[in-house]
Amino acid sequence: MKDRTFFNAHHSPAGAFATFTLGSKGAKGGFGLELSGPANDNIFVGFESADQPGTFEALPFYGGSESAARDYDVEGHSDLSQAGAIDPFDDSKVTRKMGPSIDTWIAGDLTLTIGSPVGALPEPAAPFTANGFVHNDAYLPAVFGELILDNRSGTFDRRAFIGYRGTERYAGMRVLDPEVGLVGIAQGRNTGIAVDDQDAWAGVAWQPEVILDPTHKENLPFYVAHTGLIVVPVKAGELKRVRVAFGFYREGVVTSGIEGRYLYTELYKNLDEVLKRGISLCDERLQAGKALDESLKGRLTDDRYFQLSHAIRSYYGSTQLLLDPQNQPLWVVNEGEYRMMNTFDLTVDQLFYELALHPWTVRNVLDLYADRYSYDDTVRFPNDPNDYPGGIAFAHDMGVGNAFSLQGRSGYEQAGLTGCFSFMSAEELMNWVLCAGIYLKHSDDNAWGTSRKDVFVRALRSLQNRDHHDPSQRNGLVGSDGWRCRGGAEITTYDSLDASLGQARNNLYLGVKGWATYRILGDALVTLGDAEAAAEANHAADLAAKTIVQSANEVGLLPAVIGEGVEARIIPAIEGLVYPILAGLSLDSDELVNALKRHLQIVLDTGICKFKDGGWRLSSTSRNSWLSKIYLCQYIAEKILGMEPDAQADAAHVGWLLDPENVYFAWSDQMLEGKAVGSRYYPRGVTAALWLLQNGTDLNQITEALSGSNSFAKA
Amino acid sequence: MKDRTFFNAHHSPAGAFATFTLGSKGAKGGFGLELSGPANDNIFVGFESADQPGTFEALPFYGGSESAARDYDVEGHSDLSQAGAIDPFDDSKVTRKMGPSIDTWIAGDLTLTIGSPVGALPEPAAPFTANGFVHNDAYLPAVFGELILDNRSGTFDRRAFIGYRGTERYAGMRVLDPEVGLVGIAQGRNTGIAVDDQDAWAGVAWQPEVILDPTHKENLPFYVAHTGLIVVPVKAGELKRVRVAFGFYREGVVTSGIEGRYLYTELYKNLDEVLKRGISLCDERLQAGKALDESLKGRLTDDRYFQLSHAIRSYYGSTQLLLDPQNQPLWVVNEGEYRMMNTFDLTVDQLFYELALHPWTVRNVLDLYADRYSYDDTVRFPNDPNDYPGGIAFAHDMGVGNAFSLQGRSGYEQAGLTGCFSFMSAEELMNWVLCAGIYLKHSDDNAWGTSRKDVFVRALRSLQNRDHHDPSQRNGLVGSDGWRCRGGAEITTYDSLDASLGQARNNLYLGVKGWATYRILGDALVTLGDAEAAAEANHAADLAAKTIVQSANEVGLLPAVIGEGVEARIIPAIEGLVYPILAGLSLDSDELVNALKRHLQIVLDTGICKFKDGGWRLSSTSRNSWLSKIYLCQYIAEKILGMEPDAQADAAHVGWLLDPENVYFAWSDQMLEGKAVGSRYYPRGVTAALWLLQNGTDLNQITEALSGSNSFAKA
Repeated sequence: MKDRTFFNAHHSPAGAFATFTLGSKGAKGGFGLELSGPANDNIFVGFESADQPGTFEALPFYGGSESAARDYDVEGHSDLSQAGAIDPFDDSKVTRKMGPSIDTWIAGDLTLTIGSPVGALPEPAAPFTANGFVHNDAYLPAVFGELILDNRSGTFDRRAFIGYRGTERYAGMRVLDPEVGLVGIAQGRNTGIAVDDQDAWAGVAWQPEVILDPTHKENLPFYVAHTGLIVVPVKAGELKRVRVAFGFYREGVVTSGIEGRYLYTELYKNLDEVLKRGISLCDERLQAGKALDESLKGRLTDDRYFQLSHAIRSYYGSTQLLLDPQNQPLWVVNEGEYRMMNTFDLTVDQLFYELALHPWTVRNVLDLYADRYSYDDTVRFPNDPNDYPGGIAFAHDMGVGNAFSLQGRSGYEQAGLTGCFSFMSAEELMNWVLCAGIYLKHSDDNAWGTSRKDVFVRALRSLQNRDHHDPSQRNGLVGSDGWRCRGGAEITTYDSLDASLGQARNNLYLGVKGWATYRILGDALVTLGDAEAAAEANHAADLAAKTIVQSANEVGLLPAVIGEGVEARIIPAIEGLVYPILAGLSLDSDELVNALKRHLQIVLDTGICKFKDGGWRLSSTSRNSWLSKIYLCQYIAEKILGMEPDAQADAAHVGWLLDPENVYFAWSDQMLEGKAVGSRYYPRGVTAALWLLQNGTDLNQITEALSGSNSFAKA
Repeated sequence: MKDRTFFNAHHSPAGAFATFTLGSKGAKGGFGLELSGPANDNIFVGFESADQPGTFEALPFYGGSESAARDYDVEGHSDLSQAGAIDPFDDSKVTRKMGPSIDTWIAGDLTLTIGSPVGALPEPAAPFTANGFVHNDAYLPAVFGELILDNRSGTFDRRAFIGYRGTERYAGMRVLDPEVGLVGIAQGRNTGIAVDDQDAWAGVAWQPEVILDPTHKENLPFYVAHTGLIVVPVKAGELKRVRVAFGFYREGVVTSGIEGRYLYTELYKNLDEVLKRGISLCDERLQAGKALDESLKGRLTDDRYFQLSHAIRSYYGSTQLLLDPQNQPLWVVNEGEYRMMNTFDLTVDQLFYELALHPWTVRNVLDLYADRYSYDDTVRFPNDPNDYPGGIAFAHDMGVGNAFSLQGRSGYEQAGLTGCFSFMSAEELMNWVLCAGIYLKHSDDNAWGTSRKDVFVRALRSLQNRDHHDPSQRNGLVGSDGWRCRGGAEITTYDSLDASLGQARNNLYLGVKGWATYRILGDALVTLGDAEAAAEANHAADLAAKTIVQSANEVGLLPAVIGEGVEARIIPAIEGLVYPILAGLSLDSDELVNALKRHLQIVLDTGICKFKDGGWRLSSTSRNSWLSKIYLCQYIAEKILGMEPDAQADAAHVGWLLDPENVYFAWSDQMLEGKAVGSRYYPRGVTAALWLLQNGTDLNQITEALSGSNSFAKA
């Protein structure tokens, strides 16, 4: 069994594109603000040894403690370079327990707990004043900590400490100004740690040791150095509990293309205020988090609890709630290490989680896609140089790394390609319909639906044309490539897999997804009062189902690409089933469901879609498998197709995440035979929340599981 | 002779704490905003080869051009990873010419020029509106470039390019929005390059080659990649000149302790505006810069012209003009690689340069020192545990790396030490008086002098007490250590040298500086109407002169520490002479001047204060020598003591700066036998401006030399 103690996990507020990442050994975590990976800060958390005064043990989250004093003192005249006396705790002394909200390390007499907010998020609404937007601090850019320092059997006073050496390039380490009323350290104006213990002191020095044992307390704010530390004295016989806040702040406009600033800058003036509020909320939030974790733990196996916890954390670390130039909220989920913004293929996977906890973010993203990141194009068919009618489509994403892309363009899609980085016009079109239709069902927000009715209708026409402009030649699948491909070919979200999942045209995975899209469209168009269009959509769904069912071979296996001789076998054939189910529709087509079930049973039973360790292999011809999609397909297999949970697979998937080469990236998606090779540090894993749907398909079960015990869910 | 082509130099606007550093081979320069060293961006500037279409030559300012596409495309299905065809120009093809304003590389048919603003800086005054503060764009956070692309003998159309791959962690590369009206690239909202050629195109890709040769132009904004490039087509037979702007922008409050934001944010809305203004000013500023360089070149030897040019650039790269919370200007010079803010020992050296070009910054810094970074303490004498009266003193600096230190405290000084990082109370006290007194003389700003009269008087009392509280025991030197040392000992600005210059008490260097301080005080106090105090100051000056003169040994050598058996010999004994001279005072004490001249002649003639290469060695017992101080002492030796210029030393000093190990850091100060070991990337070298005082001591000669031909001097 893999080590379950030393792995990075996010500890992230919602909407701050911020994470306090911690858990891997070395200088591998710390304060990440808008980063594509861990910040690689040195983090110091420790306690004076009970055995020997003046020696200290720390959690192993820092690198070598080399001194930088020699840069100033090139001939070594200074006496500032004293030796250090901090050793990492023995591994055997450290235990860890992590849920979605609470992460706790116990090491000897020291307990460090960090609580991340999990729960429903209120929809922002102007005015953002003290009495305006009731936000219940859901967007406070902080996470909540506590140190429990047990010196009850101690024979002398002992010092505990918490601090860091940040890697931000623009500003030095500092102590909090006395008027803040807390003891704390910060790097510039962007990140900081504060405690509420009035006996504590804070300082900046080359080495933690100097702050632990200051010969003169007035030496503590030594700003030329790079390590900030808070020291907490604990008397002999005392059990001390100290509240800790980890805060983030980024001021001003942060994005280009669309000029966005963080919503929280309207609610909190600066880092000092964030830290103060963090401390005052500490008890309540940690208590709520513990209750949430406890309750959740009872609903899932350990392996699933671990994976869902990890995934939820990574999701929030990528979330960014902005206000646009018109002071309107703008929700962004950044794409982990790639930092693509609101990548639509992720939105559709995160849909269920978001609908359960903050459905307004789904609508928010759909609106921006409709208003700025949609386009109309024509299509081409293989071996035919002519352009034919197409219709509305959507970009793959809205930009990358705080740079919103140009109107109507993603930051990703490139013309002239047939593989990775080509266009996903057809699939993103489906994604808009799926997200919009299910949002509509879940929210009953018919006013919004009516305002977007034209997009639903245009989407239907575009989908039909992408099958074929001649109704008599339609088979329900995507048969064309968008004009923007310029001779290339459209791909699917499975861009890094082989042709079995990468090619859009006649793709089985996309075929079932298209069937689902037509079904959702059919339902939505009835709701929106266009029965005629609805009938067309339902007809197209029937066509698709028929084409797919007929493509099965003699034993019931479905080809990854229909009618093109691609014999790869894929698990995500079943993926599309999730949408009508979670829209509350009956599946209608028993034939399709049965065909997909038969297919899935064969690829799993024969092992062609499994790795040696029992983990699921999305395509029989690719070594690359994606955890987010596996979670989704597990839900479908179990709850829609009635198969038994595959505990061996769960164990294998946990093993992938805990592989020593992977733990640095917290939760990652793309696994090449168990190694995280792409989509690392990634938000998409919240598909695992579907595991919480024990009975039926009501997403409120997720709402209840993930916010019921959490005070800020009430906002 | 060392290579004079490939070395980093700053290209910096004033007051933006920003530099476009360029010149060292490799990914060693680029856009540095608030950094402690070069940004290490990849910079691409090149031209299609005249010999072979499709091959390109570039200036060697980039590292390996590895592709990052595999991070997305882990099994290599994509066809995006085409090979590159850019080679660096042969070294032999590249020539460079650098003055203080203009830096030009000629490589084959390509000429790149970057012009940095040099000149007088207007004093900011509210209101900062379009018609309020007449700033003449002196604080525009941009530098000005041009590309000259000579395809007159070309037989085919050729493409030139300029671009970069930035190292900023928070935002991706992007192209400028079309509405900006320029072709350009940027990283986030903070840095960017724009050109005004309407045939040019810009893109983002893994490799420059993809942007040079886009199969589809709509692929150009590929925001998932990291390299931004502008491509300029040049027709066969054409000589094309393209204006280039390199812009910076940092929004919002950027400092802690005192909340400061860049003045320029009041004048320009964002990076787009900066780039637009940069382009429109390009011709005028480059022309002015060329005239300034040309004029300056006629006044100095090549070696001195090179050093002064380099030093001026490094100075501006460290300057930061903020507005404080009361909307008042706040001038900061950051200390190169250390980023200490307004380090007082640097202020006093940069004084002459600043008085010549922007005397208001001197007053600005003095005010903040008086109001926030002064303190009163008592003093102690060696081997006496009692506290005695002291008086006002000043902190060493105002903080580090955008973190203003706590009231009354530097970010540097530490109690309990006897070497580097100890207090410099006495020397900083002198520095305030010297800067204030000379500012007063230079500016005739008697209103300010009167408002600060109390500080002058308190400074006199404090200096006297630091000599001795008992007038009968005074000898004019610092004989005590401030209470804040807490048993340690005060040091001087020469903190990294040996005890010969490091110890403050009875220090020869500080003795002469103290003499100068009393002389300046005497003069200022007369001006401010306190003849009695003035007489006391003059008396103290006489005492100091006498003590120093009497300390000479039989041949006339002065001991580095008077009366303590420290036999080291130091050049900076003479340093203090500069202050009364540049305050326009007669030196009065021929004896002191003669003693110092004799001392200097011996240490130079005997070679004990020289290195093997002829470079000056500040202390006979230290291998560490500082260029800024050498420049200062050269001026004194030549213009005050009447010695001949030492051309061999100048050549040696140029050799230090051009040492391959040193060129990365542009201009550096601390040289350990010619190797830059500290104070790298440093602003202090503008002491070299004193070389421009050809006749007499009127600082207006510097004003005239460095702003006369420069249009924005008129502001």
